[in-house]
Amino acid sequence: MTTDPLVVFTPSGKRGRFAVGTPILTAARQLGVDLDSVCGGRGICSKCQITPSYGEFSKHGVTVKEDALSDWNKVEQRYKDKRGLKEGRRLGCQATVQADVVIDVPPESQVHKQVVRKRAEAREIILDPSTKLYYIEVAEPDMHDPSGDLERLRDALHAQWDLAEITADLHILQMMQPILRKGEWKVTVAVHLGDAENKPRIMNIWPGYYDGTVYGLAVDLGSTTIAAHLCDLQTGEVLASSGVMNPQIRFGEDLMSRVSYSMMNARGAEEMTSAVREGMNALFTQIATEAQIDKSLIVDAVFVCNPVMHHLLLGIDPFELGQAPFALATNNALRLRADDLGLNIHPSARIYMLPCIAGHVGADAAAVALSEAPDKSDDLVLVVDVGTNAEILLGNKDKVLACSSPTGPAFEGAQISSGQRAAPGAIERVEIDPATKAPRFKVIGSDMWSDEDGFNEMIAATGVTGICGSGIIEMVAEMRLNGIVDAPGLIGSAEQTGSDRCFQDGRTNSYLVYDGTASGGPLITITNRDIREIQMAKAALYSGARLLMDKFGVDKVDRVVLAGAFGAHISPKHAMVLGMIPDAPLDKVTSAGNAAGTGARIALLNTASRAEIEATVRAIHKVETAIEPRFQEHFVNASAIPNAVEPFPILNSIVTLPNQTFNTGGGGADDGSGGGRRRRRRA
Amino acid sequence: MTTDPLVVFTPSGKRGRFAVGTPILTAARQLGVDLDSVCGGRGICSKCQITPSYGEFSKHGVTVKEDALSDWNKVEQRYKDKRGLKEGRRLGCQATVQADVVIDVPPESQVHKQVVRKRAEAREIILDPSTKLYYIEVAEPDMHDPSGDLERLRDALHAQWDLAEITADLHILQMMQPILRKGEWKVTVAVHLGDAENKPRIMNIWPGYYDGTVYGLAVDLGSTTIAAHLCDLQTGEVLASSGVMNPQIRFGEDLMSRVSYSMMNARGAEEMTSAVREGMNALFTQIATEAQIDKSLIVDAVFVCNPVMHHLLLGIDPFELGQAPFALATNNALRLRADDLGLNIHPSARIYMLPCIAGHVGADAAAVALSEAPDKSDDLVLVVDVGTNAEILLGNKDKVLACSSPTGPAFEGAQISSGQRAAPGAIERVEIDPATKAPRFKVIGSDMWSDEDGFNEMIAATGVTGICGSGIIEMVAEMRLNGIVDAPGLIGSAEQTGSDRCFQDGRTNSYLVYDGTASGGPLITITNRDIREIQMAKAALYSGARLLMDKFGVDKVDRVVLAGAFGAHISPKHAMVLGMIPDAPLDKVTSAGNAAGTGARIALLNTASRAEIEATVRAIHKVETAIEPRFQEHFVNASAIPNAVEPFPILNSIVTLPNQTFNTGGGGADDGSGGGRRRRRRA
Repeated sequence: MTTDPLVVFTPSGKRGRFAVGTPILTAARQLGVDLDSVCGGRGICSKCQITPSYGEFSKHGVTVKEDALSDWNKVEQRYKDKRGLKEGRRLGCQATVQADVVIDVPPESQVHKQVVRKRAEAREIILDPSTKLYYIEVAEPDMHDPSGDLERLRDALHAQWDLAEITADLHILQMMQPILRKGEWKVTVAVHLGDAENKPRIMNIWPGYYDGTVYGLAVDLGSTTIAAHLCDLQTGEVLASSGVMNPQIRFGEDLMSRVSYSMMNARGAEEMTSAVREGMNALFTQIATEAQIDKSLIVDAVFVCNPVMHHLLLGIDPFELGQAPFALATNNALRLRADDLGLNIHPSARIYMLPCIAGHVGADAAAVALSEAPDKSDDLVLVVDVGTNAEILLGNKDKVLACSSPTGPAFEGAQISSGQRAAPGAIERVEIDPATKAPRFKVIGSDMWSDEDGFNEMIAATGVTGICGSGIIEMVAEMRLNGIVDAPGLIGSAEQTGSDRCFQDGRTNSYLVYDGTASGGPLITITNRDIREIQMAKAALYSGARLLMDKFGVDKVDRVVLAGAFGAHISPKHAMVLGMIPDAPLDKVTSAGNAAGTGARIALLNTASRAEIEATVRAIHKVETAIEPRFQEHFVNASAIPNAVEPFPILNSIVTLPNQTFNTGGGGADDGSGGGRRRRRRA
Repeated sequence: MTTDPLVVFTPSGKRGRFAVGTPILTAARQLGVDLDSVCGGRGICSKCQITPSYGEFSKHGVTVKEDALSDWNKVEQRYKDKRGLKEGRRLGCQATVQADVVIDVPPESQVHKQVVRKRAEAREIILDPSTKLYYIEVAEPDMHDPSGDLERLRDALHAQWDLAEITADLHILQMMQPILRKGEWKVTVAVHLGDAENKPRIMNIWPGYYDGTVYGLAVDLGSTTIAAHLCDLQTGEVLASSGVMNPQIRFGEDLMSRVSYSMMNARGAEEMTSAVREGMNALFTQIATEAQIDKSLIVDAVFVCNPVMHHLLLGIDPFELGQAPFALATNNALRLRADDLGLNIHPSARIYMLPCIAGHVGADAAAVALSEAPDKSDDLVLVVDVGTNAEILLGNKDKVLACSSPTGPAFEGAQISSGQRAAPGAIERVEIDPATKAPRFKVIGSDMWSDEDGFNEMIAATGVTGICGSGIIEMVAEMRLNGIVDAPGLIGSAEQTGSDRCFQDGRTNSYLVYDGTASGGPLITITNRDIREIQMAKAALYSGARLLMDKFGVDKVDRVVLAGAFGAHISPKHAMVLGMIPDAPLDKVTSAGNAAGTGARIALLNTASRAEIEATVRAIHKVETAIEPRFQEHFVNASAIPNAVEPFPILNSIVTLPNQTFNTGGGGADDGSGGGRRRRRRA
């Protein structure tokens, strides 16, 4: 009695015995090995390429002889001659089992391949796209048994791919009949595989075998910029990334001013909806041009954004988001069609918008949660997406809490006397000499310190123009470290600090950073009012995080992840000196880059992650800072640098913070902030 | 020990014991009694009105005392004072059980009420609409537990109405927030309850209790006219019926010429699609104006039409329907949205198109099958929808067969020398005096026979203008009965017939019907070519029916139903003399009127009937006459009047058909038809 040959697949390790003559693709399917195919085993698509391994495999207990696979048949040989095959590769649908064999499935032949990511610590993205291609042979019409072309096409998808209950958009019905005939009843279809609300749906159809692909967009709709990644849905690759300014900026720089615009202008919300959709369409045209693809092949898109952008994109007046109780029109994930939003991609492209967490914690925060996965973390992680409004997540495998905190635009350089957006010429790195109290700095666009030889020549094109967000954080932290600012946030006088860079400036003191006036440049100083702005912003951030720690019942966190483009540029040490973030080991403070954009890309490429993040968001415990009495208490404490009551032991083991006070008067000095300014919610 | 009071509901007969104080609505719901409510028992909508019966009910074994129901409470009294209640009526949600009681649920309080139909033999329509109204109280937003307004609204629908997984169109999200606040968190929503492809969906929302209704359209899209019934989806009532000419007529009178137009003109199909949609929108505006309703309240529509109209409405080129194998783009039922078709009703109104049976047997035939239900018939019924193309159904409970047959436009008065459409002045009824061979007739618009005194005065406004389809059938049948036309279809000479109304007219004879030339009117004759046209049309119809009888294995049918507006005007006796329809007792030949339109109305009002007709259509055995050799044989036999081989025993028991022949030459007379004209398929 002979036994059938053994087939071992790597890397899965799946194995089974198959009759001589069984195609490798068939064996793979029976074992549930992830081996791709678009043409269904007809030797056309070559997606099922495999590499047989020969020799002795003691690990698998197999010896593979040279004749373990069948000889090249005509189909396989023709494919190789015409299109070429890498050395050692065979077509899994044509090569058949002859004897024991070890078959390696290379990553590009796996449907659920892993998408390459740059960050080692980041979660894997396993490709599992919404829309796939299928080659089918459709039965011809028969007058004796009349049925529609679509119905026979559906039958073919069922019989040849086990895809049931497939629907078709009207435009498919409109274009299908000539394509079926042109392809002589052989066609390739792109099928959206359905989701929680929609059945599987044919999105496109091509005569014969379609050697192309279909695309998806991961869109990060920010208040300032709209950024998108264009991805190949068959490979998961990012083909192009592009961004445009959000045209809504003309209605107001920050979110609250846009909400106000909609309140003050009868059709204001509609105008802003049109503007953002136009901007989006301009971006899509731009990215498709860049990648040289046809926009109508973009069949899926994932959007992440904050709640105000979310509502305005959808054409919902954000009125309610401007006032307590900050009621969202909907917090669930949305599944729409491109033409619902007037977008210029495939008209029935599926649009997926991630769920919002709360009235101030949007789909962007959900995307951060998807990317950074605090709900999968063993240690307790604080994830902070720093922006005009900071979204804060705290959690681990057991539970995740979320809140937002109105940091305001100070971290973006706004409301700072010499502040500016991050752009060439802006100071982004600062060190103050402990002895001379003189600063040295780097500006964006140059790697040299300002006290190095050749600095002025290096930056001649831009000059020194101001201080951006990360620069102001380092600046204030360095000032505190070097005794120029005290814990309550007062800049000392020249006398108090021993530095003539400190000078009286109205009723408070300022600190001179850079004097470019001799060469027609700016005079860059830090005023006490600047310090106050930073104090308020960082106190808002910290107190949000601290409130979540209270709710979680902890006094410290194991690690801190700074998300957002701004977060990528923050120096952990300086942020901690400032008391922006809780005390933690410096090497446990990392940057996640544009985690919201990454979350959008995960949701685009791995459809299973959509249900996952929806469940995660439902389980997140939402904390509304505006109605938590302890938030105010934390805020007051966090106004001190780094904090009036929190000890920061790890920070204190690294740096020594001067313990002096510059307040010499009674009853509190005028802090130059104009006094009594009320914090307002920036939705 | 006391027992709870007994509550007996009529007409259902459902009964149960309920604790004293149980509201009648609650009792009804627990027993599954069909008692309506929109407000959910809040005493607002009055949909749950019931009539308690008092006295002795031996049938039910109950004595009902005057105090069997609770006294009028404040809510009920206020409703009565403000809005009024019919004598004897109570609000089922307010009146509670106090003692044994018999409760009658009047028809208007039943959700699944029976819709009144005029024809006694017609199937009942039980109201079960796609879209219903629900009054709900929605939880207010809570910052401690943030959720979207939509999610709380969905929760309310679930908790208060047990409606789960409700979705909402984008425009609901756009309008919902101010409405919730205006209604102080009490709103009425219209919910489309979902179908085979779509989840339940909120279609509209009103603040507070909405005292209106929502509407549906049953649309019969014909080649010549588009007709629609506007129905109240809460009562099933037809509020308005209206029709417009199909603007596609400018591209061709019959279907085949429209298919040709699309073949000959690059954007021909698109032009016709635009035309029919424009016509449809004009009709909808007209019908909404007539009924004085807001078009956006039309949330559901059912369309029936033949396959060419079906494809053109959908924007599908009908090219394939113009040639064998007559492949439909799709034969299944379609579920679309109004904006998919550019219709001017509620933008996401649900559009349901009935399935097509085959390439020539469209959704209109499916609608006829739904209305006339041959699949539910105990006896064998032949259903004929007479038009340019006849759709024929034959069947009973066991099986149903279907085919279409290209009758051509002769039955509509076209291609007949004095033919015309049915309009005032057209001859529609004919009798020929057996002795004088002189005809008398009635014209549309008058009830008098032409030989009655005052006829000329009566018809003075229109005159006698021509002969319509039903007139020509009676005319030819009367000519055959009275020996003016022989069985092969030749008109005899004056000598052969003994009537000087027969006169030589070229190489054949004609028959004088009416000479209005003296007063400037027409000369109306029947030429031998007219006879040939009618012979071909009726032979096509008969041979289709006969083919189905072959396939069914029968030689006779139990009854014949003539559907279509034209069918309503055909005299059964004359149709049988002509041999249009198989031999059957005259009282078993009935007219169903516009059965396709009725089928559309059934599908609109009773959503369960949609799955039902889809299953019926799948089970129908389709016969393609073009490829059945026996069809040609039947056609040749059926060219004789009534038939060259079929006996027609029942007909012969009523009338005596002269057995003469007017063909005196050898080798077949020229029949005046031009000879050799090939039948062509009229899709």
